[in-house]
Amino acid sequence: MLNPCDSGFLDALDAALPARTLRPAEERYLREPRGRYLGQAGAVACPASTAEVATIVKAAQAARVGVVPYGGGTGLVGGQVMSAGPAPLILSLERMNRVRAVEPAGNVMVAEAGCILADVQTAAADVDRLFPLSLGSEGSARIGGLLGTNAGGTGVLRWGNMRDLTLGLEVVLADGSVLHGLKRLRKNNMGYDLRHLMIGSEGTLGVVTAASLRLFQRPARTGAAMLVVPSPEAALKLLALAQARLGEGISGFELMAGQGPRFVAEVLPQVRQPFAQVPDWMVLIDLGLIAALDPVVELEALFEAAAEDGLVSDGVIASNEAQRAQFWALREAIPEANRLIGAVASHDVSVPLAAIPAFIERATAALAALGDMRINCFGHVGDGNLHFNIFPAQGRDRAEYEPIRAQVIETVHDLVAGFDGSVSAEHGIGRLKTGDLERYGDPVALAVMRQIKAALDPRGILNPGAVLRSEVRGGRRARVAPTHPRSRARPCLFGEGRAGGERVGVFAAR
Amino acid sequence: MLNPCDSGFLDALDAALPARTLRPAEERYLREPRGRYLGQAGAVACPASTAEVATIVKAAQAARVGVVPYGGGTGLVGGQVMSAGPAPLILSLERMNRVRAVEPAGNVMVAEAGCILADVQTAAADVDRLFPLSLGSEGSARIGGLLGTNAGGTGVLRWGNMRDLTLGLEVVLADGSVLHGLKRLRKNNMGYDLRHLMIGSEGTLGVVTAASLRLFQRPARTGAAMLVVPSPEAALKLLALAQARLGEGISGFELMAGQGPRFVAEVLPQVRQPFAQVPDWMVLIDLGLIAALDPVVELEALFEAAAEDGLVSDGVIASNEAQRAQFWALREAIPEANRLIGAVASHDVSVPLAAIPAFIERATAALAALGDMRINCFGHVGDGNLHFNIFPAQGRDRAEYEPIRAQVIETVHDLVAGFDGSVSAEHGIGRLKTGDLERYGDPVALAVMRQIKAALDPRGILNPGAVLRSEVRGGRRARVAPTHPRSRARPCLFGEGRAGGERVGVFAAR
Repeated sequence: MLNPCDSGFLDALDAALPARTLRPAEERYLREPRGRYLGQAGAVACPASTAEVATIVKAAQAARVGVVPYGGGTGLVGGQVMSAGPAPLILSLERMNRVRAVEPAGNVMVAEAGCILADVQTAAADVDRLFPLSLGSEGSARIGGLLGTNAGGTGVLRWGNMRDLTLGLEVVLADGSVLHGLKRLRKNNMGYDLRHLMIGSEGTLGVVTAASLRLFQRPARTGAAMLVVPSPEAALKLLALAQARLGEGISGFELMAGQGPRFVAEVLPQVRQPFAQVPDWMVLIDLGLIAALDPVVELEALFEAAAEDGLVSDGVIASNEAQRAQFWALREAIPEANRLIGAVASHDVSVPLAAIPAFIERATAALAALGDMRINCFGHVGDGNLHFNIFPAQGRDRAEYEPIRAQVIETVHDLVAGFDGSVSAEHGIGRLKTGDLERYGDPVALAVMRQIKAALDPRGILNPGAVLRSEVRGGRRARVAPTHPRSRARPCLFGEGRAGGERVGVFAAR
Repeated sequence: MLNPCDSGFLDALDAALPARTLRPAEERYLREPRGRYLGQAGAVACPASTAEVATIVKAAQAARVGVVPYGGGTGLVGGQVMSAGPAPLILSLERMNRVRAVEPAGNVMVAEAGCILADVQTAAADVDRLFPLSLGSEGSARIGGLLGTNAGGTGVLRWGNMRDLTLGLEVVLADGSVLHGLKRLRKNNMGYDLRHLMIGSEGTLGVVTAASLRLFQRPARTGAAMLVVPSPEAALKLLALAQARLGEGISGFELMAGQGPRFVAEVLPQVRQPFAQVPDWMVLIDLGLIAALDPVVELEALFEAAAEDGLVSDGVIASNEAQRAQFWALREAIPEANRLIGAVASHDVSVPLAAIPAFIERATAALAALGDMRINCFGHVGDGNLHFNIFPAQGRDRAEYEPIRAQVIETVHDLVAGFDGSVSAEHGIGRLKTGDLERYGDPVALAVMRQIKAALDPRGILNPGAVLRSEVRGGRRARVAPTHPRSRARPCLFGEGRAGGERVGVFAAR
């Protein structure tokens, strides 16, 4: 069992650290972005160096105090907040925000975990390079959190997710030892790849303190178009056509149902809309081309070819960077509009590319059978990743949907599982989806995860209850067994879980 | 301790498997490509299904018999052969060679571990797609071995190594349980990434039985050029210039010292040489472009721009696919020529890109101080990966170099380490480089690897002695400790290792 982060622990730790490293747990560290959830903590530690992180983690391990690593606080699955169990210490990397090195010739940067993504992008641009990870929260999200959740975003189609952009890591392990793995190598086969084990482990196996990141040539010319497509199926065919014509020149390919722009028009009327009449489906295609190719010419030719195949019916091509930025502003306004409208349930799912049209069709039909709801489906369709978010019917309140919310989520997730998809495409498991991991994940994989957690963090101090539920530790651990039956239990989406377990709290709002 | 794979074990196993699954250990399973090494085994198991693999591994675990997973037998670090300790069972995946599914619309293929790489490339081409992994042994190497070693090759610059090309895995674990992870998703953040833990673990954590692999659009137009560069530094500048002009259109960028083509001329005179006088340094640049770009035009323009900057002095541009194939035939003849000449020592190293010229210069000088040797330096310079191979001076025999061989290797590897490079860029650790991993690897990382091995394969039956030396298991395991000193021991390159340990045998020939 863990002990609370109490004054005895804090007094001893304070003596081992520079003044003002330990701070009161202000409320901003305890709230998560969707706004209904409040965590708890004994204090916030803000170390300025890897050695200080090691001191903190080592002390926490000795005292059996939970440590919640904290980046920008933008995570959407509660990985950064702990609402139940003994109060943890929040370990914020915010002061470790140095770019340690930038090597444009080697296309690599070494950045500390507390660096904000936008600052990393800027540091790359300052040497005429691109760090291509891009997502809505890039002005707040920090490298450590992006690594913890293997963040995705709009550039994955071309450049991959955070995992693919990382060459090496420096990590403080549960016992305070420091894994020095800041290699700047594209090829390195020196034993097991611990970098990829740490990335996506959401701070439960170690605390990332720095990373070496891949940089890229900046595309010489950029362009964008908003194209009206008759269906998601047509969007996929348009993507294949675009890839055949332009290869890796396609930097982004975002599908949007009309509901998204309509929500934006309703609550964010200052955002410009490309079409007078919002179409049912549209695609934002973004290009980054070499100097020899003109984006406008290529987009016009693509539009003509696609129109001949019946894949597009209308479109707007950006004639300058300002227009391109407007297109992206609309796309990026959708999550904020969703927040203002207020979702019944949100889903971050992926399915094999070819299954996207069938998934959207069947999920829409299944939800219609449950009640009158509005669906806002949008996302990184080139990656098979959709944000399939459910809202009250016009004029109705989301409180009315409380009785069916669990059923809504289960309906969507069961369909995703039926298509061999993932119920956490890019947001991670956090504390919100531990039940989903148990229900939909491979039971053998889950058992291996528990074995690894037990081996690397035997006292369970690192981000307790994230990814893997804490209660299973201690006697009830699933074993790897060849005949392990696939769980048939109902999903435990909101900590309603097993008897005797640590309840995860009030993660009701997605 | 492990038990030998003896007749008692084999008789019991035979009864549990279809007839002829167990076979005598023919010599071809016991030899490794560089030809001086002979392994041992009680038998070879050739299962036809994942269930049979599970039966075999489960029985081996129960009987504490070592299992050596076997792919195409092309590995260069002895991961597939075991010369000492109790005789293991070789587990060859050769009969599991089905392509289970090909989905061109989703750009994914599911292939069993026994599929030969060339067959996977062909299966992709049959649906107008590309599986881009490409290396000299592609006619023999199998998917399981390529995953085990995280194989690289010539396409890494553009498409990544085996790790980057894999979406999911099916793996039989040490207890015979089956990890069902054949996802076909580009984005999937459902807990710890066990796929990447298995890839590169060389069969020591599980036996891969199938993989879902990424496919790509085939470039519409291809082209190639052999360009004479004044120095490795100029080659790197040429690469940057080429990337700035052509972006991801560069599919390959191989550096070759003149020694390689001269060896080829000596022992493989039938291979065509592009230059009458072999230059000191040349680059093979390979393009895969969209239909709108003409490779010959782009290569001519690149040559002109590079010549203006003094980066190239001569060159040949392929005017058709046959000429392009000739260029590649020369590049691919180099390893065979090396084998025929007979190396003193071979090195598969990587350093940060910017360090390549300094590494080559300093390594060349340091070796000159040791004796009269010929150096053949070639490799995937865009990935920072060089094969830096050492040969006897003209007219001398490699036996004469026996007394200094260990010093040659240590000199090269110490320099690599000094540049923060890797002494195993793409070949893996196997049994040849376990000492290098201990000497040059991060000690904390090594301790974590041992913890993971102990957790996932507690009896140590999976590929015993590969990656991690077996003798350390059982009482002498390194612990993760914050003050763990970096080992200062001499390198144990050839199993000369620690007292009381299991000797790795006669891995003298690289």
